[in-house]
Amino acid sequence: MVDILHRIGVTSSPDAVYTALTTVEGLAGWWTRDTDGDPGVGGVVRFSFEPGAFDMLVLEAQPGERVVWEVVDGPEEWIGTRVRFDLEKEDDYTIVLFRHEGWKEPVEFMHHCSTKWATFLMSLKKLVETGTGEPAPQDVRISNWH
Amino acid sequence: MVDILHRIGVTSSPDAVYTALTTVEGLAGWWTRDTDGDPGVGGVVRFSFEPGAFDMLVLEAQPGERVVWEVVDGPEEWIGTRVRFDLEKEDDYTIVLFRHEGWKEPVEFMHHCSTKWATFLMSLKKLVETGTGEPAPQDVRISNWH
Repeated sequence: MVDILHRIGVTSSPDAVYTALTTVEGLAGWWTRDTDGDPGVGGVVRFSFEPGAFDMLVLEAQPGERVVWEVVDGPEEWIGTRVRFDLEKEDDYTIVLFRHEGWKEPVEFMHHCSTKWATFLMSLKKLVETGTGEPAPQDVRISNWH
Repeated sequence: MVDILHRIGVTSSPDAVYTALTTVEGLAGWWTRDTDGDPGVGGVVRFSFEPGAFDMLVLEAQPGERVVWEVVDGPEEWIGTRVRFDLEKEDDYTIVLFRHEGWKEPVEFMHHCSTKWATFLMSLKKLVETGTGEPAPQDVRISNWH
């Protein structure tokens, strides 16, 4: 099993970051405009992109602390993996420790997703700090795979 | 052992990307302005940043195909790890498969470095495509760790 890891710091409160991770409006503001579903624990949120969609089952949502999703539908390599956001206050920042864990193999698609996650986490930072993120389809293009 | 993985596509030739990875001027244009040393095989290049420097021994440099460095001095977690850039032509892009491999543990600093590498690879893409990258100290700030 191999994991994608990232760390960003947002100059805002853990509650503001948590809201961007646990509301349809927040999620649509940094990952993809086409977000729909129930972002509470036990709910499923569907994130749609031009090439396809990801369905995330919300496993954990602890206000200001942690959000954990399990991928229940989407690209084969993603199914069964988990996406985890741990929040912590440090200096004037809310630190987001991010993990997309449980990939079976370090395939080329995983390299791509690692870089895309970095750009989407920078979009999350931008959304919370300025009110405007860069969600799909206005996301940063990194390659021929978009 | 755990690895940082990334994938970007540059709308330019493998040779142009290779030049940005194997000349002091190229490296200084996307990673850090303060780059010095011998970027040929067997040479050591020193990349300096405000908090400290990384010394990379160039293990491999195959024109248009691959560059591999070993970290011989720098932060403790980096020493002995390898940084690898594999280039491949695909559609109108030069694909850069990036790996920073051989970390002993997935420490918080590794999360940080993963996100920073993504922003520096986007700086490499920008440099080769437009002539201007975002090397330190003008690099993208991602957190309190810079």
